Amino acid sequence: MSSQSSQGGFLPSEEQVLALLSQIQDWQINHGFLLKLLESETEHDVLSYPVGVSLYPTPFPKSLFNRAMDIQSIYNELYVAIARDETWLYDATKELIHTESLANALWGIHEQSKAAGAVQEISAAIFRSDYMLHTTNTKSPDPLDESETTLKQVEFNTFSCAGASHAKRVADMHRYMARTGAYNFKDAPEHHRPRASSLPRNDNVESLASLLATAHAAYGAPKSQASKQTAVLYIVQPYNFNVADERPIEYALWEREESVPTYRLDWGEDIIQYTTLTETKELLFHPPWLAGPDPVEVSVVYMRAGYEAHEYNHIGWQARLRLEQSSAIKCPSILSHISTFKKVQQALTAPGALERFLSPDKAALIRKTFVMMYPLDQSAEGLRARKILHDDSSNYILKRSLEGGGNNIYDGIPDFLASTPPGAWPSYILMERIKTPASMPRNILISRTGVEEGLTVSELGILGTCLWKQTKEPLLHNTCAGWTFKTKFADVDEMSVVKGYGCFDTPLLE
Amino acid sequence: MSSQSSQGGFLPSEEQVLALLSQIQDWQINHGFLLKLLESETEHDVLSYPVGVSLYPTPFPKSLFNRAMDIQSIYNELYVAIARDETWLYDATKELIHTESLANALWGIHEQSKAAGAVQEISAAIFRSDYMLHTTNTKSPDPLDESETTLKQVEFNTFSCAGASHAKRVADMHRYMARTGAYNFKDAPEHHRPRASSLPRNDNVESLASLLATAHAAYGAPKSQASKQTAVLYIVQPYNFNVADERPIEYALWEREESVPTYRLDWGEDIIQYTTLTETKELLFHPPWLAGPDPVEVSVVYMRAGYEAHEYNHIGWQARLRLEQSSAIKCPSILSHISTFKKVQQALTAPGALERFLSPDKAALIRKTFVMMYPLDQSAEGLRARKILHDDSSNYILKRSLEGGGNNIYDGIPDFLASTPPGAWPSYILMERIKTPASMPRNILISRTGVEEGLTVSELGILGTCLWKQTKEPLLHNTCAGWTFKTKFADVDEMSVVKGYGCFDTPLLE
Repeated sequence: MSSQSSQGGFLPSEEQVLALLSQIQDWQINHGFLLKLLESETEHDVLSYPVGVSLYPTPFPKSLFNRAMDIQSIYNELYVAIARDETWLYDATKELIHTESLANALWGIHEQSKAAGAVQEISAAIFRSDYMLHTTNTKSPDPLDESETTLKQVEFNTFSCAGASHAKRVADMHRYMARTGAYNFKDAPEHHRPRASSLPRNDNVESLASLLATAHAAYGAPKSQASKQTAVLYIVQPYNFNVADERPIEYALWEREESVPTYRLDWGEDIIQYTTLTETKELLFHPPWLAGPDPVEVSVVYMRAGYEAHEYNHIGWQARLRLEQSSAIKCPSILSHISTFKKVQQALTAPGALERFLSPDKAALIRKTFVMMYPLDQSAEGLRARKILHDDSSNYILKRSLEGGGNNIYDGIPDFLASTPPGAWPSYILMERIKTPASMPRNILISRTGVEEGLTVSELGILGTCLWKQTKEPLLHNTCAGWTFKTKFADVDEMSVVKGYGCFDTPLLE
Repeated sequence: MSSQSSQGGFLPSEEQVLALLSQIQDWQINHGFLLKLLESETEHDVLSYPVGVSLYPTPFPKSLFNRAMDIQSIYNELYVAIARDETWLYDATKELIHTESLANALWGIHEQSKAAGAVQEISAAIFRSDYMLHTTNTKSPDPLDESETTLKQVEFNTFSCAGASHAKRVADMHRYMARTGAYNFKDAPEHHRPRASSLPRNDNVESLASLLATAHAAYGAPKSQASKQTAVLYIVQPYNFNVADERPIEYALWEREESVPTYRLDWGEDIIQYTTLTETKELLFHPPWLAGPDPVEVSVVYMRAGYEAHEYNHIGWQARLRLEQSSAIKCPSILSHISTFKKVQQALTAPGALERFLSPDKAALIRKTFVMMYPLDQSAEGLRARKILHDDSSNYILKRSLEGGGNNIYDGIPDFLASTPPGAWPSYILMERIKTPASMPRNILISRTGVEEGLTVSELGILGTCLWKQTKEPLLHNTCAGWTFKTKFADVDEMSVVKGYGCFDTPLLE
């Protein structure tokens, strides 16, 4: 236990923990900070359980938090430039077409859609760049010493970014706890009592809604003869247990001063059944329950589905193609979606890659967040990867070029590859492990399985929103849109709160 | 099915109902419109399920809704006058002392507290007056015809009034549904689509918090040497599954522009353990977790426990006595609590009783909301009750003088009384049945047990808040504080949503 970690020198008593747990539980119920217990669902009832959270906010260096927020607009600029550069994006990801059926589907849909002719020059996107703290001195005891501690990017997400609503709720919850003095334990030293003023606010839900509202306005009046109304179409996975993360964006759109009509539609068959394309490619939504003969013309398609390979059966493919072909503004369009593959993240580490898209100053700021990454192909970089595998891969992680966790190999990489057909190797990238500063903060994490105390590692996600034309004009909208923050025990590799690894948390900025 | 009832002429299809149910379920989860499944509770986890709600808002005459809101300040005035008139209150309830242990405890605690000397001349209270629609013409098909339809009071609650938070949530939910066009079914006629503008807003949580904040301010600075801070003490029942109704008032107090510190304390042993009285009767709260040696001086005691006889064991009695004796402002004080017995409601129907407390004009407005009520004692009115029982009691309900539902006899009153010792009869009052207008609205009610359609009856509760000095000055605060609205099937006698009878609803004012 390090004396530098903020909760390091103090552990609350069992009675004190129980008092906090009771407050947290009631706050979570009252604010819908919950997940559906899907197996309990009937048409008229469902049970919900609390999302995993940390008992305390977890210390995080304020200067690095601010830097991550500051550079998000550069990351937005970078990934917009990538979406505008189909040639580069194709080169970076083309090997995946043969090894990942999702990449095959996305490029296939893009080609079909392009052949039909693009009818909407505006695109929108919600990005999330995930970071962890990294030390250049593994023996360093001081995570606040910037000469030794820095931010390194874990991954960059361009599609269906989740967690914003939960991240806002946890920030509100820890702030409430701090304001009410819930942490002011008698025997806790002053610096172990988080002040509300050290906890950042999080307006991410409002920011995401604001992007979609801006895109909705940019679309303008209905163009088809058939429709008198435009609306955002929110595409979701059916039977999702995470409605408490999805729905707040929809509520925020309806509740804006100028209300933005927003309708949900399940991925797949329902898209085929309840939408049509006009001759001039307007996407019309025909909700089965709505009054009047007029369909709704879709201004913006917001995607929270379609990120898993199995969703692209024949119907899923046709559904995505219809959305992509339409004149609706896509959030995001398919080229942005493709830029989420980890092959893109790795390709950007190649010499000169960033400078293709950014000024040298901006490229330098972005490059500072990179760790070493290698492809597993026949290139010079690929051969370097093979040498690492041969010598010592213990400082590396093998990542498959798919979204989210669950596809990473942390140990025994050579054995894993030996059992994998060499033809599938290009799906993977070899990524240098991020080295957590030695003096990790302790915290108490709450989950369905229990309340545990230990050393923790946090992941900071920064949300970015942008709107742009596919031509080379300046971006129409480019902002940092808030953050997510997740904490897990140091000895756990995975980070996925809704799957039970780690929990939502608030950075205590110091 | 009557053509006058607003949803009467139209039933949505199963597909349409399912679309609404899905929206309602997600809204309830996201907004904490839930109850704890207590048996699932551990220190780190708990399941919650949705509170019962109606699919649609239910029509209610706008003029009668407004009248109920308008006369609430008179009802507040009346019940403050009763709390100031101990003699009258004692006469009205003294027979209960021998038959109801709760009445015995409350009067006993009052006497002990009075003997010790009153040290706080200010009292606060939150009242709720419950009404149903009543017709003077049981064959009338028109609930909107005021010559035939009027408001009759079911009961008047002066203690621990619940339901405000749920009532606010259901109003927000139905308004959201109406605004988003969720009810605009293709085949529903225009007048079956509730407009948001016909649904009253409900600021009841903010109003209740506002009363407590006003009382907190009226208490002033800490008086004891030991304390530097004052706070509201919120007394609750332990292991309550209804935290989503209780907590929002606490959150609203903390979140006011001028934050009002509010701490929860369980009824019983915890009051004995964590509070003390100073020599000058300041009530000090010593939260076990708080930093610093200074206890908190309690400005206001807000009671959401202590309404059941079993709570007054030796410890419960001592706990309530300590609160009552203290210089904290009680919400409510014990005389107001005693005025919640149905014997008081019945005693007010006696000739001249209202005029003891109110001007003739105001008394007339209140009396219009009364049905006939009789005691079961040896008075002239009691003898009249016996004659009714002998002739035909089918138009009457027998109510025990306790809070809430579950104690009423709807059928077989003579048989019930025959099996009850005559000494216990004075606990009961005989109350004329409220006659629901014949043309009842249809609705679809959602509960854990299913989704059912049928004829419904609603109960409108009007919340009132007041602050006063025990002397005869004008009230310091006297407002109507919002509403609750519950709907059940016409063939169900009980109304208790959290127990599974009926559901929360919004009046559709027309």
